[in-house]
Amino acid sequence: MPTTESQALSPTLELAIDLLARPSVTPDDEGCQALMIERLAALGFHIERLPFGEVDNFWAVRGHHGPVLAFAGHTDVVPSGPHTSWETPPFAPSIDAEGMLRGRGAADMKGSLAAMITAVERFVAAHPDHRGKLAFLITSDEEGPAVDGTRAVVEHLRERHERLDYCIVGEPSSTERLGDVIKNGRRGSLGGVLHVKGRQGHVAYPQLASNPIHAAMPALDALVREHWDDGNTFFPATSFQISNLRAGTGATNVIPGELEAVFNFRYSTEVTHEQLRERTEAILDAHGLDYRLDWTLNGEPFLTAEGELVEATIGGVEAITGQRPTLSTSGGTSDGRFIATLGSQVVELGPLNATIHQVNERVRAADLDTLSEIYEAILVRLFASGEAS
Amino acid sequence: MPTTESQALSPTLELAIDLLARPSVTPDDEGCQALMIERLAALGFHIERLPFGEVDNFWAVRGHHGPVLAFAGHTDVVPSGPHTSWETPPFAPSIDAEGMLRGRGAADMKGSLAAMITAVERFVAAHPDHRGKLAFLITSDEEGPAVDGTRAVVEHLRERHERLDYCIVGEPSSTERLGDVIKNGRRGSLGGVLHVKGRQGHVAYPQLASNPIHAAMPALDALVREHWDDGNTFFPATSFQISNLRAGTGATNVIPGELEAVFNFRYSTEVTHEQLRERTEAILDAHGLDYRLDWTLNGEPFLTAEGELVEATIGGVEAITGQRPTLSTSGGTSDGRFIATLGSQVVELGPLNATIHQVNERVRAADLDTLSEIYEAILVRLFASGEAS
Repeated sequence: MPTTESQALSPTLELAIDLLARPSVTPDDEGCQALMIERLAALGFHIERLPFGEVDNFWAVRGHHGPVLAFAGHTDVVPSGPHTSWETPPFAPSIDAEGMLRGRGAADMKGSLAAMITAVERFVAAHPDHRGKLAFLITSDEEGPAVDGTRAVVEHLRERHERLDYCIVGEPSSTERLGDVIKNGRRGSLGGVLHVKGRQGHVAYPQLASNPIHAAMPALDALVREHWDDGNTFFPATSFQISNLRAGTGATNVIPGELEAVFNFRYSTEVTHEQLRERTEAILDAHGLDYRLDWTLNGEPFLTAEGELVEATIGGVEAITGQRPTLSTSGGTSDGRFIATLGSQVVELGPLNATIHQVNERVRAADLDTLSEIYEAILVRLFASGEAS
Repeated sequence: MPTTESQALSPTLELAIDLLARPSVTPDDEGCQALMIERLAALGFHIERLPFGEVDNFWAVRGHHGPVLAFAGHTDVVPSGPHTSWETPPFAPSIDAEGMLRGRGAADMKGSLAAMITAVERFVAAHPDHRGKLAFLITSDEEGPAVDGTRAVVEHLRERHERLDYCIVGEPSSTERLGDVIKNGRRGSLGGVLHVKGRQGHVAYPQLASNPIHAAMPALDALVREHWDDGNTFFPATSFQISNLRAGTGATNVIPGELEAVFNFRYSTEVTHEQLRERTEAILDAHGLDYRLDWTLNGEPFLTAEGELVEATIGGVEAITGQRPTLSTSGGTSDGRFIATLGSQVVELGPLNATIHQVNERVRAADLDTLSEIYEAILVRLFASGEAS
């Protein structure tokens, strides 16, 4: 494996640096996918470019029979912000004296993409007649609207009745050391914007007005105190948070005519978004509010509680790192929510997430080589030729 | 009395028009007080100009013995806004075809000032050796900060141990017809700005944050539901209104670090502002909030429940209009709150308030002549020479 003073970089780091040098801020791919496609085509993958809108996507498959395992990920990165805020230029990747690979996307998730490619290269070289079908599902819009990216590709695959049994998403799941956490699901996210109507007036004449703040408070408090569920083995209890609250004209002597509250559910697989909507509206109705409520379903929850993929992933991590990973469903949403709708087993496994979306994003260079070994070990467990999975 | 087609205006309307022609937007007096002083000096009033800061005030007294009755008022007016919004120029007073005197300040309160002067002129002519002492307390800052106006003059009088038994404030108290309402007090106004502190975080990790919206809601709801007092014969129950509420970064996935609530008490004479502060803070403390609370006492309540002034005012209105007025303490604050601290009986009596602070401010011209007669009738009842009050 390369070190700081080494001239020869590993194939994984070479590819990671090639990807990081491309300023592929969402939805621009900047040729990243072409780099990946070139490597996969050389391995005999069948490539299908699937652009939707201004988003580049591709689907690549190698093999003809049996279960399908896809590596999923995104070539787009979040904006760097002012380059002057960075210790090194965000799109001029380098490995520093501490062995950290620096650049926007190093952790989220070009490092993972490079590790996937090199893992598959080694696996195919060793097992040219592997079991099952190996696939890649790559998008250039995971960090943005996420409408024309993985979601659209998944709909396309669904229409074609494509099978997708196992999916490894390269999101940076590790927290303290590489491979310590595997995400085997994510909570759902349901947002609401509530407008409570009142009647504006002067504070000296409250009997002529109807204060929407006063009206809304008991109802909002009831929503905060509501016990939505108990969660389960894999999910914490569903949580409700009011993120924004706004009422008032700014004048101290005017009763406002409207209150706006923005809230968000992070919910477990013990409730559905339909149930949350119904229960929320029932509470508001019970308080006699005059309101309008606009809902946004950001993502349904998904869970891969157990199965071959989870077993192979735990086994792969343990074999390479010597430590057993924990399963977690914490954190925000990911493209796993779309893929899971195909009935796939989905796990997320990638490098440490400490610096993602921040200035000076970086990842231990050696970790990417180790990650590539882990991905390969998972492939061996599931698809090695002549072996039982 | 003058009518639309009449060339000869009454002395009251002539003076009102002279005052209205001066654009005395707070704190500018624009020579209004000089006009009044000229008339009062001619009647033998002793004039004392009492400027404070950039505010013109004067105190004028006629007579040497007995109780003191002061007419109180202000020469300043609120801004007109764009002149083009007005049907007639705001500072070019005129009487329209319906007999309405138009101009900024016609109702609030240059019309009252003119009526006071002419009432006193007639009264002094008829009763040159009147009982008691007649006085005027006039400011050019009632509509603005109200710090260097009546409040400062009252402090000056207090320091000199001046007596002020009765005070008639010319605020437009009438609602449907001239003299239908006399204000014999005003509620207090106490404002608060509450900052509730929490800890900012991501909605996906509520256990790492502390949502100040969630924390504040039960406490604010308790304040809304609190029964502060029952009011009394003259005052409605004390009311608490939240006028502004603000929390949130605008982002839907961030738990905010702070909530700000702006509230206002309109309170009766059954509670003190000290009690309201203590009870509010006790409720916030009982809910375990981490908060900062800044108070502003806008005005203490005052009440002239009964006495010679109220009797004379009711009697004067009834004698001139044939209708008995009602007493009221409704509405916002007025300079009466400062004068009442001298232990004075205070009433407010003036023209209809329907158009005050609006474009096309106007008052029935004939009402100002009637108002002058009412003021004179009150003087006769209290101070006519040789008569018992």
